[in-house]
Order: sequence, then structure tokens, then C-alpha cells
Amino acid sequence: MISTLSSNIFCQDEAAFYIKKIYKHSLEYGQCQDWLQYLSDSIGGRLAGSAESYEAVDYTYGLLSDMQIVDTVYRQECTVPRWDRGPAEIVELRMPGDTIALRALALGNTIGTGPEGIEAEVVEVFGLDTLALLGRKNIEGKIVFFNRPMDDARINTGYAYGEAVDQRVHGASRASQYGARAVLVRSMTTRLDDHPHTGVQSYAEDVEAIPSIAISTNDAELLSAKMQGSKTLKVYMQNEARLLPDTTSYNVVAEIRGSSHADEIILVGGHLDSWDVGGGAHDDGAGCVHALQVFATLDALGYKPKRTLRCVMFMNEENGLGGGRAYAEASNRLGEFHLAALESDSGGFTPRGFTCTAMPEVFPKYLANLQEFDVFLDPYDLFLKPGGGGADISPLKSQKGLLIGFKPDGQRYFDFHHTDQDVFANVHVRELKLGAAAITSLVYLIDQFGL
Amino acid sequence: MISTLSSNIFCQDEAAFYIKKIYKHSLEYGQCQDWLQYLSDSIGGRLAGSAESYEAVDYTYGLLSDMQIVDTVYRQECTVPRWDRGPAEIVELRMPGDTIALRALALGNTIGTGPEGIEAEVVEVFGLDTLALLGRKNIEGKIVFFNRPMDDARINTGYAYGEAVDQRVHGASRASQYGARAVLVRSMTTRLDDHPHTGVQSYAEDVEAIPSIAISTNDAELLSAKMQGSKTLKVYMQNEARLLPDTTSYNVVAEIRGSSHADEIILVGGHLDSWDVGGGAHDDGAGCVHALQVFATLDALGYKPKRTLRCVMFMNEENGLGGGRAYAEASNRLGEFHLAALESDSGGFTPRGFTCTAMPEVFPKYLANLQEFDVFLDPYDLFLKPGGGGADISPLKSQKGLLIGFKPDGQRYFDFHHTDQDVFANVHVRELKLGAAAITSLVYLIDQFGL
Repeated sequence: MISTLSSNIFCQDEAAFYIKKIYKHSLEYGQCQDWLQYLSDSIGGRLAGSAESYEAVDYTYGLLSDMQIVDTVYRQECTVPRWDRGPAEIVELRMPGDTIALRALALGNTIGTGPEGIEAEVVEVFGLDTLALLGRKNIEGKIVFFNRPMDDARINTGYAYGEAVDQRVHGASRASQYGARAVLVRSMTTRLDDHPHTGVQSYAEDVEAIPSIAISTNDAELLSAKMQGSKTLKVYMQNEARLLPDTTSYNVVAEIRGSSHADEIILVGGHLDSWDVGGGAHDDGAGCVHALQVFATLDALGYKPKRTLRCVMFMNEENGLGGGRAYAEASNRLGEFHLAALESDSGGFTPRGFTCTAMPEVFPKYLANLQEFDVFLDPYDLFLKPGGGGADISPLKSQKGLLIGFKPDGQRYFDFHHTDQDVFANVHVRELKLGAAAITSLVYLIDQFGL
Repeated sequence: MISTLSSNIFCQDEAAFYIKKIYKHSLEYGQCQDWLQYLSDSIGGRLAGSAESYEAVDYTYGLLSDMQIVDTVYRQECTVPRWDRGPAEIVELRMPGDTIALRALALGNTIGTGPEGIEAEVVEVFGLDTLALLGRKNIEGKIVFFNRPMDDARINTGYAYGEAVDQRVHGASRASQYGARAVLVRSMTTRLDDHPHTGVQSYAEDVEAIPSIAISTNDAELLSAKMQGSKTLKVYMQNEARLLPDTTSYNVVAEIRGSSHADEIILVGGHLDSWDVGGGAHDDGAGCVHALQVFATLDALGYKPKRTLRCVMFMNEENGLGGGRAYAEASNRLGEFHLAALESDSGGFTPRGFTCTAMPEVFPKYLANLQEFDVFLDPYDLFLKPGGGGADISPLKSQKGLLIGFKPDGQRYFDFHHTDQDVFANVHVRELKLGAAAITSLVYLIDQFGL
């Protein structure tokens, strides 16, 4: 289908002109910043199962319901874990005659220490594999301190995160196998600062759960330095986090029925849940309002899609993926085909482009066809290349469509990610709008020309 | 010369590996942030001819002198205008029974109103050409208010600036021809905020000089709105800016002599002067420390260039270009050839790529050869495409080498440009370092493979 494009100059000019209209509307009349401010500042942190998360469901359901272009809006049930942080965590570095409070945040889905807390010696390691080298005799009864920094020589901060995050996700489980009493984890950022970063951790089956808490990078450096100088240093940890029984929550799904290829679905979405600290502005309020703005812009321009467009606010990306799984299961049950699913979950920064992936048997065809879009995206300095799609849309891969990740500039993302700093004030409105415009343009191209 | 590259996989691998080393060094050991903090916070705003500008000359001369790799460092004389802002400007909106102070900054090289100030009716226009339509009868004796906003639907903020800045540069001269007493200009930014933006204005010959002052975009909106409602509105302006006699200042030039093609010069530079308000952090302390970091990184890596490398801190880009002209004149006198001259003067933000230009008779050859570099720049998401070089290097164009402009992301540039907000705190250290790494990589490629 796309092959008509390169041979048809008229089509090209028309599409380029339409994309210009999309950008103009997004930049001059886009409202995504207002929606993001409401989500981040007024509603605030919205972990799945929290009152705030249900408020966010109702708010975005309302926004989508108000759009003329939308044919259907519904709440789609999903099962989500409920995790409660409890009161503020206490982590103290205790030396004879001196106690220093460390800035700390319990990791998502961790258990608590109980009210009495845990005081123990500390063993510092720089990766999961070091545990086996140290063995049970050096770990048992201690607090394991995972202190491998994110590699700041990586240009792609997402890769650096990917290389370091295993200590956060699996640290507690692995340390528990060697008899550790608890785990401290260096925060996931290349910066040295005072903001601890939370994020999910996960207990393996058949392993005794132990508490797992992140400390700021500055405090990780401090603890490491103090450990060099003191044989008698101990750390005290106290937190009362707990996992409650699973509960029901919702994705919000809106649909515009396609006029000629209604059976080919193009999805655009972000995840509505966020961590409980901060306002989930970049992660992932930005992605949600990007998706909402796509629909709002097409609405304002009076666009009539050929294919069926879906806007999805996914629930529970942060600590379970309940929403993403429920969406894909429902879709598979109905025998649907997502020609393309695009997720924005890398922040509200200046757009750099898109990465995409698909099942191996169909990916080469998609990649070849996508090259036809370069002529439209180059003027906006947007790349389109192989890479990740997104967590929430990943279960759709088996439908053999194209999964697309929106990639804004990532250099500042881990300044804010999963911290109390992820608030609307740290989002640049023009950059946010440019993201919405870039995504709308790609959705438009796929709808017009197929893949 | 470059043609050896694509046919030689060994060369390619070696170069890709070296660029990786450049990035690693720049990100992990780069000191450009310390130099920038000193230039912006400790020295501060440094308009040509000011005490701060001479301090900046001495500081960067010292930094370059301390580098082992450098063969020669010298101060190169140039003639620069001296402009003195005088005490804080006063701009007041005066209505019967109500006076509102507007946030204002006199434009560079403007004269003052004198101590008594000017009170007059205001005529609002949206471009230079409107003056002829209005004619002398509607302008004489009044203050002309140029209020055309920068177009925020432009993706390239530099283009939007280019489209709007004629009112700032030529507004006073043109309005004076119709008998205006003074000029107010809307600040050059797409944002609505309270920070007036200064910048150069220029008097045409044979025109009576009249004062020219910028007001913040919020105040431009306010003034425009108030003018709709009030026939009796006047504006009072008072400032004591003055142009002093020209004086002598300096470029700072450092050279590393090439080992095999010493007669082909590769220049990398920024401009050392800045406006007097703020700290000239993005404009153009960032460009200066980028260039310094290029030399420092090559020094640390023990690099031996084939071609002659020059690092130049230009003086007086903001209000005269005295440094850029003096450099080119000296170079032309010596019959030198700049194979490439690269200027960083668009801020310290995330690198997007490079634009380049040359004389028409040589440009196609350069463009064809530059494509060979894509393989090295693509992994860092850096484009290389036709476009501007830079003001300071523009007089070198007649040498028929390539002029290159470093292009960081421009979405935030006009939040700070020429305001009191252009300070080190508004520079992201990692983004700054990435800029230095990108420039160093391109300098390395040109040195290795020619053009």
C-alpha cells in the first residue's frame, strides 16, 4: 500500500502540508500542558490501586468523552497489585558517636522491616554476580549495599539504566539467597544528587522476602566512603511498606472507527499510573497527554481516519503491567489486529524520533516501508530506527503489527525519573507539545499510507 | 583524500573506536562545566571593552597555556565598540490615574533618552513595512512599539528569531525616518514571561539616532491590550546608555601545529564576549568551553593532529564582530587556508548535529565528502546538513574552506538568550559535555580524513 507514496508527488505534498498543520495546531493550540499539570500537580502521584489512580482514570475518561471525534470511550478492567509505602523510610548510617540520616525511598513492592527496624553491618557490592564470589559467610545477617553506578559514558541513558537496574529489580531476591537481612540500592541516575529514586523490585518465588530501599547517589557515595574508614559502621533501616491484596483497576480506551480499513488498528498510548512520590509528570503523565493530544489535534483538524485509531491510558505499568496484559488479552480474544501500537513512555522532552520492533517474520517488510516516511520526518529531525516499543504494548507483539516507542531526548530523564522531582515544573511546555506533534504526524502517516 | 575512507574498513573501525574514546573522556573527565561556571558566575556578563571581557581573555589564555598539546597561544588585537548601559532603564505605561512599570532592557548600542526621559503617545506596529503605510503623520513625535511575536509554530527557533529580529536591529533607524522619538521592541522569545531580552540594534547612516528599548513579552502583551482600551495612554522611557569611543580588545588564539598537512587549518571556536546582563552562559560561554574542551580532550588522549588545529575565543560578536573580522584579516594577510572552521554559538544543549556552508564553487564537493562521516555520526544521532556556520567565522568564507555551525537542540535557547536568565544554573552539565564530545569527534574526523 505504501508503495503508492514515493511515486506520487501529489500525495507527498499533501501529506507534508498536513503534517505542517498538525505541528501548527499542536504548538499554538495544544492543551496537553494543562492536562499534564492537572494530572501531576492536582492529582499527583498515582500508583495503581490508589485513590489518585482512580481519579486519573475518571479525569482522562472525561477528557476523551468530550472529544467529538471519538466514537467510543470505556474503562477496561484489569487486576493490579496494591502496594503501600507507609510512613517515610528511615535509613541511618551509625558509627560510634555519630549517626547520619540517608535520603531513602523504599523500592516498589518491597516489604517493610517492621516497626523495630533492622540494624546490621553492611557489605558493599557492585553487581549481582559478586554475591556468589562473596558467599554466604560474608553476607549472612548483613545488609547488602548494591552500589554499581549507571555508566555516564553511555550516550543513551536508557541503555545505562538497563545495564544497572538489575540490582534494583533482583537485588533483594538474590541477596536473600545468601542470608542477607535487607538491601540498600544506589539510585538509578548518572547524577550525583540528593533525590532517592524508587522503582519496582521483584521477589523471586521460593525466596524469603527481605526489605529493599534505594538511597540517593550522594548518600551512596557517602556510605561507600565511610565504609572504607570504619570497621564498626552499621546501617539502620526502618520502613513499613506492605503489599495488599490485588484489586481491580482500569485502562481507559477511546476509539475512532476507521472509514475504509477499520480492521487495522493504530494504537497510541501511555501509562496512567505513576510512582507515589512526585507527580508522575515525565513518567508517564507526558505520555498520556501526548496520546490525548493526538486525538485532540485530529479532532480539531476534522480528520477522518481510514484505519481505526485507539487512544489507551494503560494502568499499572510501574509495578505489574496488569493494564497492558488485560488490554492484549481482550484484543486477542476478539481476534483484533494492531497494525501499529505506539507508546510514549520516555518523558516529555524534545523529540528525537521513534524506535520500532516487530516479530522477525514481518519486521523487514515494515522497516523497508518505513523508509518512505523519512522524507516527512527529516525536516523535523526525527529518526525512525529499530529499537524498543514500550512495556504496555509489548504483549501485542504476537499480533504481528509494528510496535513503536516514541523517543524524546533522554539526557535529563534520569534527573527526575521515579523521584519527588518528577513534577510539572520540570517539564518544558514547548518540548511537550513538540512530542505530541511528532506522534500525531506518525499516526497520520501510518493511517494514510499503511505499513 | 576522504575517498580512502569508505573503502577501508580498518580505518572505519579505528575511527569509530577513537570517537568512543572521545565521548568517554568528555563525559567522565571533561572540565568544561567548571570553566563555564567560572566564566558565567565568577566573571559574569562580559560585553566587549568591559573589565569582565578582559578578565575572560586572561582566564581563557591561561587555560590554553596550561595545555601540553598547544604549541602557541596569543592574544590577537581587535578594535571593538564600547557601549555602556548606564543605570537601570525605566519604562512606564502612563494612563490617567495609573502608572505601570514595564520590565525593560535597552538594546545594545542604543543612545539614551537623557535624564529627563521621553513621554509620548505610542503607535503599535507589527513590522518595519507598516511604518510606510502609517506615514509620518501617524508616527511623528510618538514612540513606535514593534510588537510582532516570534512565530511559535516554527520548529526551528533560530528561523523564528531570524524572521522577527529585524524590528530589533533596524526598528529605531526606520522609525526615526518617520519622526519617531523612540522605539519599544517586544522581546525575542516565543515564551510569555517577565524577562526582557537585550540584543544589538544598529543605526543606519544619515539617520537621527533615537533610543531603543526592549520590553518583556508579558509586558508587550499588556501594553498592546491597554492600548486597545485607552486613547490617552502614554509611555515614559528613560535610559542613559551611551556609546564610548572604540577601544582595543583581543581574540585568544591557540594553535596545535599539524604533523603532515600543517597548511590546512581546522578552527574551532566560540565568542568570549556576551551581553552585560546575565552571565553569557549559553551565549556564548558554552561555545567557548566547547572549543576549550576539544583541545583538552585531544590533549588528554595524546592526539597528534595531521592538520593544524586552532582554538579561537572571538571577541565582540554581540555588538560589532570586531574579533571575527580581525582574525580573518590577519589570516588572509598570511595567505592561510582554513579547510574547516567550526563555531559553537547556539547554546550548551543536547547536540542535534552540524550545519555547514561554503562558497558555491566548492560546496558540492564538501557535501559529497561529508556523507562519508554519516556512519560515524549516526550512532550519536547527529545530523550533518547544509545551513549556517557562525557569525565570527563568516569572514573566512572567501578562503573556500567549509564553515560549520554546531547545532544543539534549540527549543530552550530563547528562554535565556540575552537575558538575566542566561546563567550557569540553566545549563545542563551532561548536555554541555555531549556538545564538546560531538564537536571533538567532527574535528577528529576532518583532521584524519580531510574534506
